Amino acid sequence: MQSSHLSDTIVAVSTGQGVAAISLIRMSGPQAIEITDKIFTGALLSKEQTHTLNYGVIKDEKGVHLDDVVIGLYRGPKSYTSEDVIEISCHGSPYIVKEIMALLIRQGARPADAGEFTMRAFMHGRMDLSQAEAVADLIASQSRASHTLAVQQMKGGVSSEIKNLRQKLLDFVSLIELELDFGEEDVEFADRAKLKSLVEEIITLTSRLKETFHLGNAIKEGIPTVITGRPNAGKSTLLNKLLNEERAIVSDIPGTTRDTIEEVLVIEGMQFRLIDTAGIREAHDEIESIGIGRTMEKIGLASILIYVFDITTMSPKEVAEDIASIQPENAKVILAANKMDLNPYAHADEWKLKDYPIVPLSAMNNMNIEYLIETLGASVAKDIPADLPMISSARHYHALERTQSRLDDVISGLDSGITHDFLAQDIRQALHHLAEITGEISTEDVLGNIFGRFCIGK
Amino acid sequence: MQSSHLSDTIVAVSTGQGVAAISLIRMSGPQAIEITDKIFTGALLSKEQTHTLNYGVIKDEKGVHLDDVVIGLYRGPKSYTSEDVIEISCHGSPYIVKEIMALLIRQGARPADAGEFTMRAFMHGRMDLSQAEAVADLIASQSRASHTLAVQQMKGGVSSEIKNLRQKLLDFVSLIELELDFGEEDVEFADRAKLKSLVEEIITLTSRLKETFHLGNAIKEGIPTVITGRPNAGKSTLLNKLLNEERAIVSDIPGTTRDTIEEVLVIEGMQFRLIDTAGIREAHDEIESIGIGRTMEKIGLASILIYVFDITTMSPKEVAEDIASIQPENAKVILAANKMDLNPYAHADEWKLKDYPIVPLSAMNNMNIEYLIETLGASVAKDIPADLPMISSARHYHALERTQSRLDDVISGLDSGITHDFLAQDIRQALHHLAEITGEISTEDVLGNIFGRFCIGK
Repeated sequence: MQSSHLSDTIVAVSTGQGVAAISLIRMSGPQAIEITDKIFTGALLSKEQTHTLNYGVIKDEKGVHLDDVVIGLYRGPKSYTSEDVIEISCHGSPYIVKEIMALLIRQGARPADAGEFTMRAFMHGRMDLSQAEAVADLIASQSRASHTLAVQQMKGGVSSEIKNLRQKLLDFVSLIELELDFGEEDVEFADRAKLKSLVEEIITLTSRLKETFHLGNAIKEGIPTVITGRPNAGKSTLLNKLLNEERAIVSDIPGTTRDTIEEVLVIEGMQFRLIDTAGIREAHDEIESIGIGRTMEKIGLASILIYVFDITTMSPKEVAEDIASIQPENAKVILAANKMDLNPYAHADEWKLKDYPIVPLSAMNNMNIEYLIETLGASVAKDIPADLPMISSARHYHALERTQSRLDDVISGLDSGITHDFLAQDIRQALHHLAEITGEISTEDVLGNIFGRFCIGK
Repeated sequence: MQSSHLSDTIVAVSTGQGVAAISLIRMSGPQAIEITDKIFTGALLSKEQTHTLNYGVIKDEKGVHLDDVVIGLYRGPKSYTSEDVIEISCHGSPYIVKEIMALLIRQGARPADAGEFTMRAFMHGRMDLSQAEAVADLIASQSRASHTLAVQQMKGGVSSEIKNLRQKLLDFVSLIELELDFGEEDVEFADRAKLKSLVEEIITLTSRLKETFHLGNAIKEGIPTVITGRPNAGKSTLLNKLLNEERAIVSDIPGTTRDTIEEVLVIEGMQFRLIDTAGIREAHDEIESIGIGRTMEKIGLASILIYVFDITTMSPKEVAEDIASIQPENAKVILAANKMDLNPYAHADEWKLKDYPIVPLSAMNNMNIEYLIETLGASVAKDIPADLPMISSARHYHALERTQSRLDDVISGLDSGITHDFLAQDIRQALHHLAEITGEISTEDVLGNIFGRFCIGK
């Protein structure tokens, strides 16, 4: 991303590519209206009111009729970017779009970088950085849950929590800095006990926010769900049964599949990425151990682990041993006791382990598949906090981590009776890291990184 | 296409598919505003003025925030369809688009058929049929020339010629029908000599319009240009040289390539489809004769034939024989005298044939390639009539053909002193066929055929 010149007028095609009924060309900046007035016959936009639609013809410098269009006019600051914005709705012919773009560029606009409209909205204070990031998440959202997360963040859910914390800390640091002005006099305007309890409160909150990241990020990207178990436990049959109904929900949206996600299942609006693995067993030779290595790698990345076992052949002890060998540290485990139809008198409870939910089922006979799906959905839904927004961005997570580390210093400083100036410095650094999230403090690199991931035209 | 119910409110996504900054959902019909008011928080559109942009939030029946959108409001009849039209500009997430579409459909809209918005514009008399067809051509246009044709037709160029002819004929037929009222009295209000000269004038015009079809259609679809000649004449080298520079112009537009057009070259805004053929020669066996058959088939479809020959080995007589054997009835022929570098003293004029332009060149050395390109462009450009719109639709061509056939009957009727009633009937039929072009007379089948070829959302 090149450095942003707010004096430039930028232009981009904002709608999808290819032949379509309509394409939308968006232009923003100080010259947007002036440029349009040179090429548009429908109305003199410089005389028109904001938020109006104006029908007319776009002609090039030689007077050639390029297209009948409707032009939406937004006068700054009441626009997406806070600048004057023009939206040209033309026929969706790639030839026409190319010709109009070329004309606008000849007339003084420059092609916008990815995300540059939203960056301008941020620069002009229309949204903070966390809200701007949510715009990209919103566009990329593929399920109700990821959409909800993005909407929440765009509405300022995370930002307002952060700002709340910052304000409280700011009040304290101001008092401490006032103490500094009194130099040797050893006054204490800031109540140390209250400060400590505030900092502890903030640490608790940052911890909780940080804890939402693992799930928030999984919801955004699709929750990695590994199906594992010994060979012939019925893993693939189960996968097929799980996908039977829900698969269509995803595949009827064109252009949504990213990379090579194995299979996608949507439960209660949440997207689960189901990953089938080779059966786990003891390695008899080197090749087998490579296979097991790969399975273990996938298990390491899982948020949820569905362990499938054959209840007619596996003892509770063997199940426990398998689970222990897998070491599912960060994942939730669901036990799927398969082939219950062959062993109707078995009590699945005998195979129960820790607090893992166990679902007795028969994949082959479609028995209890629905119950497994509910269990899967519930295992995630119960962790979605009701009172707190969730964070889903690694950038936010790391900023919270740095904040917390500085606040830990504040606590130990308070305990060891550190001097005013060091105390103030630690709090200032914590404030700095909190401000990174909302973008009150940001570098060009950070902005380039964030907006570079946007679509062109947004 | 189902039969059109103008009482329905129709809805469709009008922009390209896939993830993008913005997607546009268009809704038209009597309930468009009412439906929007139920789901949109930004403004009560029933109270807003036409041609306004309204920012707000779309919520579903449960109050779930689906998206921040801008809604364009067009009150009928000042809209594309002449009905109330709503355009929702939302974030270009396929998930969001799907959710909003589903919500609108639950609230009473129905998914629009392909071309249904434009069909409504036609039904409400906002454009005639020929203009409506031009909308689809405009969206599909891939070059300046095809774009110009479509714009001309959309602005009513062809329609106004047709209407002009119809009006004159109508005046006459009214007079003749008046004569019928007088039964046996044998009066003549309509001057037969004037009628004959009018009909002859109209026949001349329909003939000229018909003549524009071959070129007009070729411009719309890309002008089929076959490169032919004996083996080793240098055809492929020439093709590569021709494509060298211009090819990029086409390939930087995504989604424009249709089917398997061989290679595309744009000259003076016109798109030439270059088709290389196997060398022509006498068939020594059956397999060779199949190859020749295919070449001849392509030659039969060509608008332009570039005949390449090696001037160092071919005599003027052999060239003449080749051309004669090809029988390029409908195609323009350009003679490309290749390998001039090896025979610098040759006078290409000696190989001249009929009025075919001849271009001495050396493909290998890039000599005179530019001249061949100019010749190619000029050979088409000189046939574009300055005083007449061109027709590019086979439907129009056939309607003109039927019109002309009836008018021929009128002429022979006049010559043989046919009775009033038969004369009136022939003229009425000619009028009917003219009216098919502009759609004053149309059947549901014809409309289905025309609009079924449109994009969804237009």
